[in-house]
Amino acid sequence: MARRWNGWGDESYVKEISDHGRRLIHSVIGVTDPLPNASLDAVMAKVPASRLPDHYLISKGAEERVRHARGQSFPDWLAMHSGDYGVFPDGVSYPESSSQVRELLDLAVEHDFEVIPYGGGTSVAGHITPQQSERAILTIDMGRMNQLLDLCEESQVATFGAGTPGPLVESQLRVRGYTLGHYPQSWELSTVGGWIASRSSGQQSLGFGRIEQLFAGGRMETLHGALDIPSIPASSAGPDIREIIMGTEGRLGIFTEVQVRVTRLPEEEKFFVVFMPDWSSAKKAVRELVQQNIPMSMMRVSNAKESKAHIHLGTKESQFKLLDRYLRFRGLGGDRCMLTFGVTGSKIQNKTSLKQVRKILKGYGGIGGSIAQMMGKIWADGRFKFPYLRETAWQEGIAIDTLETSTDWENVDSVLQSIEESLENSLKNENEEVMVFTHLSHMYSQGCSIYTTYFFRCAGSYEATLKRWQKMKASASEIIAHSRATISHQHGVGKDHAPYLEAEKGRLGMRIIRTLTKEFDSDRRLNPGTLLVQESGWR
Amino acid sequence: MARRWNGWGDESYVKEISDHGRRLIHSVIGVTDPLPNASLDAVMAKVPASRLPDHYLISKGAEERVRHARGQSFPDWLAMHSGDYGVFPDGVSYPESSSQVRELLDLAVEHDFEVIPYGGGTSVAGHITPQQSERAILTIDMGRMNQLLDLCEESQVATFGAGTPGPLVESQLRVRGYTLGHYPQSWELSTVGGWIASRSSGQQSLGFGRIEQLFAGGRMETLHGALDIPSIPASSAGPDIREIIMGTEGRLGIFTEVQVRVTRLPEEEKFFVVFMPDWSSAKKAVRELVQQNIPMSMMRVSNAKESKAHIHLGTKESQFKLLDRYLRFRGLGGDRCMLTFGVTGSKIQNKTSLKQVRKILKGYGGIGGSIAQMMGKIWADGRFKFPYLRETAWQEGIAIDTLETSTDWENVDSVLQSIEESLENSLKNENEEVMVFTHLSHMYSQGCSIYTTYFFRCAGSYEATLKRWQKMKASASEIIAHSRATISHQHGVGKDHAPYLEAEKGRLGMRIIRTLTKEFDSDRRLNPGTLLVQESGWR
Repeated sequence: MARRWNGWGDESYVKEISDHGRRLIHSVIGVTDPLPNASLDAVMAKVPASRLPDHYLISKGAEERVRHARGQSFPDWLAMHSGDYGVFPDGVSYPESSSQVRELLDLAVEHDFEVIPYGGGTSVAGHITPQQSERAILTIDMGRMNQLLDLCEESQVATFGAGTPGPLVESQLRVRGYTLGHYPQSWELSTVGGWIASRSSGQQSLGFGRIEQLFAGGRMETLHGALDIPSIPASSAGPDIREIIMGTEGRLGIFTEVQVRVTRLPEEEKFFVVFMPDWSSAKKAVRELVQQNIPMSMMRVSNAKESKAHIHLGTKESQFKLLDRYLRFRGLGGDRCMLTFGVTGSKIQNKTSLKQVRKILKGYGGIGGSIAQMMGKIWADGRFKFPYLRETAWQEGIAIDTLETSTDWENVDSVLQSIEESLENSLKNENEEVMVFTHLSHMYSQGCSIYTTYFFRCAGSYEATLKRWQKMKASASEIIAHSRATISHQHGVGKDHAPYLEAEKGRLGMRIIRTLTKEFDSDRRLNPGTLLVQESGWR
Repeated sequence: MARRWNGWGDESYVKEISDHGRRLIHSVIGVTDPLPNASLDAVMAKVPASRLPDHYLISKGAEERVRHARGQSFPDWLAMHSGDYGVFPDGVSYPESSSQVRELLDLAVEHDFEVIPYGGGTSVAGHITPQQSERAILTIDMGRMNQLLDLCEESQVATFGAGTPGPLVESQLRVRGYTLGHYPQSWELSTVGGWIASRSSGQQSLGFGRIEQLFAGGRMETLHGALDIPSIPASSAGPDIREIIMGTEGRLGIFTEVQVRVTRLPEEEKFFVVFMPDWSSAKKAVRELVQQNIPMSMMRVSNAKESKAHIHLGTKESQFKLLDRYLRFRGLGGDRCMLTFGVTGSKIQNKTSLKQVRKILKGYGGIGGSIAQMMGKIWADGRFKFPYLRETAWQEGIAIDTLETSTDWENVDSVLQSIEESLENSLKNENEEVMVFTHLSHMYSQGCSIYTTYFFRCAGSYEATLKRWQKMKASASEIIAHSRATISHQHGVGKDHAPYLEAEKGRLGMRIIRTLTKEFDSDRRLNPGTLLVQESGWR
């Protein structure tokens, strides 16, 4: 894959916007001119001299430093397109072993520099974006540690280099007959070490579990030596160190080799799309499905606005009209909601699950029929392609971002509505409309995740566009932080969510996290500014 | 329930040993005289004056102090029967609210005393046993905080007082149509707060999850204020505080109100016992069942020795002979292994699961037939009664203890064999035989728990009997600690397992735990000696 230097994914892939999809967007937010894009050469010319020492493991080339300076958050996107990066890492290293990571950490102490671990560079919350510092900054790209090192078929535990990205995780397992089944939307690029460091969740977490259930053990190199977690199925022996270091986002150390729980490739996997009459029936249906504990591998339910947007963006106009006519004929109007679900496992189990699912969905007025499996296949085929839309839209002056949380079922409607209203109203004083839609996914008996996408017009400058985003992000984050909802269900904390973490963790929860980061990194050398806001009193 | 003051459970319940069960035990370890039992009055006479201040929340009565001085570990058992308690708490408190717990913690600082939280008093690892101290010791019995405080049916989250014991958890939920489904063997007495503080696992964890999956949030009172964890279904926002405080065994604070994930009462629940030809086929069968992810709520497989012992202890001789004849007729001899399993859920799901289970078990030569469900019911009816056997055996001079671990499938046989051999050989130099048998339970795709029971003769004195146990416990614990197995899968660390914790957690893992206990309890006032061995340099 030739990777886009200033955006998402494979530069050979372009996600087209259908004409009627474009008309729908324009009907909500209007049209505008795109902002000018900086060239890679222009950005490279801005890269300053490196402050790092010369070392055989450290590269100081301008292009590498540009390519490792930013993730995929909206501020990152603006920086990459405007060329106003602000800070570049002083160098990039590509270790090939735990001992080379160890060597780099020792070097960081010796030469007093900071270290940022880099997996797939897919953070949408600023995890890997360097902050201004008096000290030099080294980004450690784990991408060369990308091998399946061991597979114990008896215990179904696989050991990977922490820098192994999704496709290499699956391809190396599949030739042996196994799968991990962890598919975040960033799967094409994000890495197993990154998933663990940021507590990732995959689209099929309902069946395969979140990364918490998949991570079995492994090594994290810290400033005080290697922290090894033995692979053990379960334990009551005190606090779970595995759970303590998951989600530390590079603040305690760098994962180098990790063990994950794999399963044999399923006999059968099927996805379906069913349409529900309205939001209320759709939400009740998925809640009942998950609370009845029916084995399924994924569920997602889009609200009416998202259902409309997805179908417009995902179809040609003629296809849309056919589908619309069919659904209207079956009695579903403009309030209809798409419900996508999947079953993964043995044929006999899938058959039983589907029987129960159909009964429940039918009871809530769901319409599937012959198109359900075809549309399920379309979802599965395009499941990692949505992020490419940002690029296409950007070239037309349209900015896209997403935000997400999770909360208990009793709060879902109020949190969802508050987030959507806040985004829709956030630019009213500029007479700007925002196009907002939402889905629920990652179903739990207790609640689910809420995932909201918003489209808005670029302002006349990068600065003004960033201000628009900041206003929207802050307003939605405040709502989340004060609604017993998590500031992130699957994107992590990074720098963008750090100001809201205390509302969730509480004063003593924050004390736990700060105590550990201070104990392991008293000089604040490891990914500073991530997870915790700038610690007062520290350099 | 009138509780035994010096042993397990309800004093009105006596578990009889069948004649042929007794003969089996005697055939292995021989007979001996029981040791003399101390009376409650004699022990009460030893209770010294309390060093605690007078306070309306603190009781200093001798009987209460005796009844809260010990749990159910083997050393506890010897202390309770010999009357040599060593240390008694200086008083007992029965708070009725979080604010009363808060008041007691403030008082502990003001008057410089130590605090031990007490749930059901069922620890088998010394969690609640006070250690000699220059300071006074207060045991805080949470038993009055035993109410269902809230049930959100939409989110399926129940809030309980942390001192609610198993039967009150279930009875208060069941009248509302819900269940928690957490059934450790100590269920009759142990409490939801204790389960969380010690990372408990129930017999049906395969279906309902371990306490880690059930604990949703709640309050822990610490010396620095209340640590509140909001109920959220899942999050990627940094380390999971819930997971950090689970298993801290009173070292960071005391759980006062806790939220757990409940489910609606299942439509159907069934248990079965099937006999497998030998250990190899039995182990392969359960591994295949769990790795195929077939929905079941429990599995347990006893090795041939345990199968023999359980059937002898659980049947009359005439019943045993019938069963034995039937199994021999079906081709199963002395190597046969009992495999107990259960399904819990909807009828349609259970039917599908059972179809798959039968196919796999049949493939490995399993014999069930008409007796399978009847024997399953016998298991279910007696599931909490095994601990009562200790009392009956003790009165005949027979000591019983159990130990447990978990490890990956690839290690199961070698760890199991090493533990059994070590126990069987541990008293050879005294010409003593030990009767040892084992089952696997709590199946995970990655591995399972190994649970070993051992019977041995009391020595001529309490001191010599304790020495026998210490030798056995140390030898088995050393093996576990050095075999990539956990020092405890379900009993916690307490004081008995603390010396082995570092082998599992590593130097840096221990540093994490010590850092947190120091931060939260710099004066080592909360349950000292538990979880961590006596910290050097601390008072």
